[in-house]
Amino acid sequence: MNLTLIQFGKTKDRWLQEGINEYLKRLGPYHKISILELPDASLKANQDEEAVRSKEAASAMRHIQPQDSLILLDEAGELKSSLQFSQFLSNLSSSKRSIFLIGGVFGVHAELKARATHIISLSPLTFTHRMARLILIEQIYRATMIAQNRSYHI
Amino acid sequence: MNLTLIQFGKTKDRWLQEGINEYLKRLGPYHKISILELPDASLKANQDEEAVRSKEAASAMRHIQPQDSLILLDEAGELKSSLQFSQFLSNLSSSKRSIFLIGGVFGVHAELKARATHIISLSPLTFTHRMARLILIEQIYRATMIAQNRSYHI
Repeated sequence: MNLTLIQFGKTKDRWLQEGINEYLKRLGPYHKISILELPDASLKANQDEEAVRSKEAASAMRHIQPQDSLILLDEAGELKSSLQFSQFLSNLSSSKRSIFLIGGVFGVHAELKARATHIISLSPLTFTHRMARLILIEQIYRATMIAQNRSYHI
Repeated sequence: MNLTLIQFGKTKDRWLQEGINEYLKRLGPYHKISILELPDASLKANQDEEAVRSKEAASAMRHIQPQDSLILLDEAGELKSSLQFSQFLSNLSSSKRSIFLIGGVFGVHAELKARATHIISLSPLTFTHRMARLILIEQIYRATMIAQNRSYHI
């Protein structure tokens, strides 16, 4: 599949980036997968939360084509088991690009929610948007292993 | 509080260990916290899943005192938001030791479930037991920041 992960801001912690790289490498044989890192709009001073979300949404929308599937990660989204997430991934059209978008420090703007094809949640727990990147890519790897009927414990 | 995290097997990935160390360090001023690493019983050949769970339970039970609170992490446990998890942590008795236990490769034995004071789940998604260590400690840190009324975005 053709997967793009959109995120705002760099993954500053080296250990998180190493973990993400590990799963990107493992996913290489199965998907065309890339990470699109857009600016973290919260870093400029004197911006309120809604202004940050709005800037980040505008920046993301410039990279989203009308035919793309857009899957938002949001705490208020639908919870799935790993098996359900694997079925969900398998059901995404392989002829379209699927974009997973993790909101910035202040979450996701309503404009992106309105554009989203699906809104899913990783857990009722709140994760930092940086940790969410690692958890998402690990789940994409797990989902791929489930779909391939391969074992994966570690 | 006096917190012990019991896990089976080493955290082999360097990046995961670095992430866990980062949160252990941040938690230092707030809790007496330690990790107890017991042998991963799945590493010996010719053992079925139930035998592995049983060996790991026996090994853990030798470290659990009758007065300890035992909180198991298990997929079938109760889901909580980060706010609920913070309240849960605050409600644990500060005069007792609280043990968080993450099952091994094959999960948790019924003997430990019967002993548990609480059984909680990090998500309907399945995580590796190693990733669960990082997610749990990050949530303990988040819960502590919530209880201290401190901001925490990263």
